[in-house]
This record gives sequence, structure tokens and C-alpha cells, in this order.
Amino acid sequence: MNSTNKQFIRQMGYDPDSKLFMIHADDAGLSHSENRATIKALQRGIVNSYSIMVPCPWFYEMAEFARKHPEYDCGIHLTLTCEWSAYKFGPVLGQSNVPSLTDDQGYFYKKRNEVVNNAKKEELKKELCAQIDRALSFGLRPTHLDSHMYSLGASPELLKLYREIGHLYKLPVMLNSKLITEVSGIHSSEWDHFDEISIDHMYLGELSDFKQGKLRDYYSNTLSTLKTGLNLLLIHPAHDDEEMKAITIDHPNFGSEWRQIDLEFFTSEQCEKILKDQGVQMITWKEIKDFMYPG
Amino acid sequence: MNSTNKQFIRQMGYDPDSKLFMIHADDAGLSHSENRATIKALQRGIVNSYSIMVPCPWFYEMAEFARKHPEYDCGIHLTLTCEWSAYKFGPVLGQSNVPSLTDDQGYFYKKRNEVVNNAKKEELKKELCAQIDRALSFGLRPTHLDSHMYSLGASPELLKLYREIGHLYKLPVMLNSKLITEVSGIHSSEWDHFDEISIDHMYLGELSDFKQGKLRDYYSNTLSTLKTGLNLLLIHPAHDDEEMKAITIDHPNFGSEWRQIDLEFFTSEQCEKILKDQGVQMITWKEIKDFMYPG
Repeated sequence: MNSTNKQFIRQMGYDPDSKLFMIHADDAGLSHSENRATIKALQRGIVNSYSIMVPCPWFYEMAEFARKHPEYDCGIHLTLTCEWSAYKFGPVLGQSNVPSLTDDQGYFYKKRNEVVNNAKKEELKKELCAQIDRALSFGLRPTHLDSHMYSLGASPELLKLYREIGHLYKLPVMLNSKLITEVSGIHSSEWDHFDEISIDHMYLGELSDFKQGKLRDYYSNTLSTLKTGLNLLLIHPAHDDEEMKAITIDHPNFGSEWRQIDLEFFTSEQCEKILKDQGVQMITWKEIKDFMYPG
Repeated sequence: MNSTNKQFIRQMGYDPDSKLFMIHADDAGLSHSENRATIKALQRGIVNSYSIMVPCPWFYEMAEFARKHPEYDCGIHLTLTCEWSAYKFGPVLGQSNVPSLTDDQGYFYKKRNEVVNNAKKEELKKELCAQIDRALSFGLRPTHLDSHMYSLGASPELLKLYREIGHLYKLPVMLNSKLITEVSGIHSSEWDHFDEISIDHMYLGELSDFKQGKLRDYYSNTLSTLKTGLNLLLIHPAHDDEEMKAITIDHPNFGSEWRQIDLEFFTSEQCEKILKDQGVQMITWKEIKDFMYPG
């Protein structure tokens, strides 16, 4: 746990030795299946934060929910990639306004590296701001920003832009040194010295766990061994239904079966019991936002 | 049956007293549920024509099917409206390029009349051509044009543009005097004297039939009483699943239950038997296209 964070946590009124925890559902707005499952997981009371993909087909439905339910943490899942084969989306500004962000057909690139190699900075900024502005114009009151497939951690320039946009909109951004190193391929001591709150311990299931049928074990182990500081677990609840099967076709990594497990585990009594037994202290992005940008 | 059509039918090599028939599935590309059902209905061999909505979220998946299966008639379902409450789409050119075609949020209007009252002619033409061009750039070889919610029949100016675009792309457009009168509110003898092929007898289920549980009866009666000339029945096969229920929420007219009935009836042995017993002669848009625009 880095010392800056420790200080912040104390200033926020928490014991710096407590295990603070968020369970965060990514990808709301992606599909109706994802929306239904995310809403279930939030209403069940275990998942306490989510983020919404503004360029996606089912954004409208999820935005309606977000507007009517400001009691849940809701971030903007800034989107620059579309990893799916048969289901496509692109920038809210359209291909003609931000051509460096799209493939020939006007859709987002599939991979982070294509963003790193092709996207022009001014177009990136224009599109990311347009996503947030669109959410605001729908009446959303976002509590944080994060980044789909963590594309905004994939180069030092993207990371700088991500944090800049956070400051601009007075919204905390999800930062984690390990994840930045993973997606950018760059080790840097800089990643441990942000001047804003970052996530001390980030958790995300791995494909090997899923393939071996050990995803539930990974989750229960994670919940049972949280560390001192700010812990965040990323999940993707959805139903393993026809819609989601078609979206995630040929993509077992975060595919529909995986997402169904996320839904089941994070609405289960088992999960609730572990959290209770471990004396985990849940925290929200709303609290972090109010601390970082009071008033 | 109008005399121009009678002449065309003879020239196409059909007995002018035959009952020519097309069963046309609208709305492909709207959703995965619609795509799955449309494909089933085509592969079952009863539905022999469909049209695809280019601006919709699942266009990509359906376009892949269309590209791989040129043996089925595939039209462009020119789209200027989005009638749904929780599921939204807008122009392929984006709001900033065709602002008169969208509501404040950048989505298509819900109603035909909003198109009639707000859409500028040059933006309409630009967007409609962009939808066709996009389909062509995906490798589709469209056989015809038709119009979602028949918006392009809703005023004499729209009808003129619709036919103009057909000539421009050398594609037959779906024309029917009764439907034009219904959606435009204008009775005109002009509607019976097109210089291109039009549909003599158009059939479409009604909400009252659906509400009374008589949709299947309507379909079997229609199939049993086809008239001399060119008959066309419009259907909307989809599954009554969670995705489609959410799209058609609070909209029983052409809602998910209705669409499930369409899927079931037009893949049934009962339907196949009626068509056989009646000696119905199936015809395709491809034949009409090749006749109207040879070479």
C-alpha cells in the first residue's frame, strides 16, 4: 500500500489499517443481458459500484436506470475498443469526426495496441469528453471514470490524458500500478506515486481460472484474503443467454459463461457470508469523489 | 390488379392470372433475436425475402449472413424512425451531419409524422444513400429497397425521394397504393399508376387480430385467399426472449409475442401445407430487379 493512499484513507476518516473494498461491475450498457444482470447484482446489495459504456447500443436503458437510481455509484466506462466479432460499436462522435479512432467500417479497434498506434490525441480527447458530456446530458451524475479494457493505461500519453480528463471533470479515475504495467508493458516507479487516490490492490479473474472451472474459488479466495488499503475487484455480470452468447462468440475470455458465473457468485449467500465474516469495509467512488473534489 | 402490373407480370414470363406471392421478413439487423429468427425462417424455406436495417446495432451480424448467403433475397430496410422506448438508434451519418433527422439526443424520431414535419430533403437523401452505400461497402448485393414503418410513403415528397433513390441505385422499391394512402392520409389515383412494378395486394397483421389471439387465423386466411397478381405479406419474425421483450416493452403492436407467432407460423408445416394446397407461385425481388434493371 503506497504512503500517499494511506494518508488519503486516514483523511477520509478510515482506519489506515482497514481493508476497504469495492466490487465493481464493468460494461453496463453493453447489452440488455449485461444491464439486467448488473441491476440484479446492485439490487442484491453485494456489488456496490458499476460503470456505463456510453457508445453501446443499450446505453439508453442503463442510463434511465442510473438516472432513477443515484444511490448507486455509477462511473463512465470510457470506451475506445470493441473486442467482439459479431457485435460492433464505434465512437459517439461518428467516424467522420474522429477517424483515427476507428477501423475502415467506422467501428472501434479490437485491440488496445491499435488505439496506441493510430489514435490522434486531439481526437481521443474530443471523443472521451463527448462520452462524458453525453452521459451528463442524459442526467447522469457520474461518480468516477474508468477505462474499457484499460486502454487508457496502455501508454504514458494515454494515461496522462485519462488523468487530465479526470481533473477536468472533477472525477476520480481508476488507477492501479499493476494494471498499468500489464497493459502498457512499462514498469515505472511513477505508477506508485500518483498525487490522487489509486487502487492499492486490484483483482480480476484470469482465463486460466475460468478454463479450469476455478473462477468461483478465485473469487472466494480473493474475498477471504483482502489486504490493508484500497481493494477493488472487477467483474462483468451478465446472463449466459442467446444475446450474450452471440456477442461473446469465440471469445471465452470474459465470455457469456464467465459473466453468468459473475452474476451468480455476486448475488449468492456464500459471497455475502464471506464479506461479513471477513469484516470487510465497503467503500464507494462517491466517497472518494467527495473527498477529492469537495463541494 | 392494375393494368401496368399485369403487363409487367406477363413480360416476366408469368401467367397474368397467377397468384404471385412473397413472404417478406422486415427488421433484420434490429437485434440478435430478430436475426436468429429471420435466418431460421429463411432456412426453413417458407419466408423467401427479407430486408436489413443498416443503422441498427445488430446490422453487422446480419450483413455477414447476407454476404455469405446471396441465394436469399435481401433488401435494404431504409430506416428513418425508431419506435422503441428503451432501445435507440440513429442515422449512420451521425447527428451532426443530419440533425434534422434526429431528436435532441441524436436518435431517430419515434413517429413518421416527425420525419414529415422536420426532415430536410437534402439530409434525407444523404442519409438514405449512406445506408445503401454502407450495405454495399459490406459486400451486400441488395435486391430491393423498402421502408421501415413505411415512412417513405408518408408524404408525396418522401415517396418521390424513395422512388428516385430506387432509380439511382437501380433497385426496385416496395410500392403499394393502399399502404401509401394509409400512412400519408392522402387518397390519390396517382398511387395506382406507377411506371414501375408495384405490389397489387399487401398484407400485414393488425393489432386487433393479435389482441384477440387471431393472428394465426389471419395468416392462414390470407394464405388461403391470395388474389391474382402480385401479393406480398410483411412479417417480423423474432423470439419472445428477454432481449426482444426489452426492445418492444410497452409496445404490443409488433411486440415480441407477436414476432414469436410470426416465427412459429412461418416455419410451420401448417403454413407450408396451405401454400402447397393453394398452388401459390412464389416470386422474388431478385426476379423483379433483373426484369426492371437488366444487366
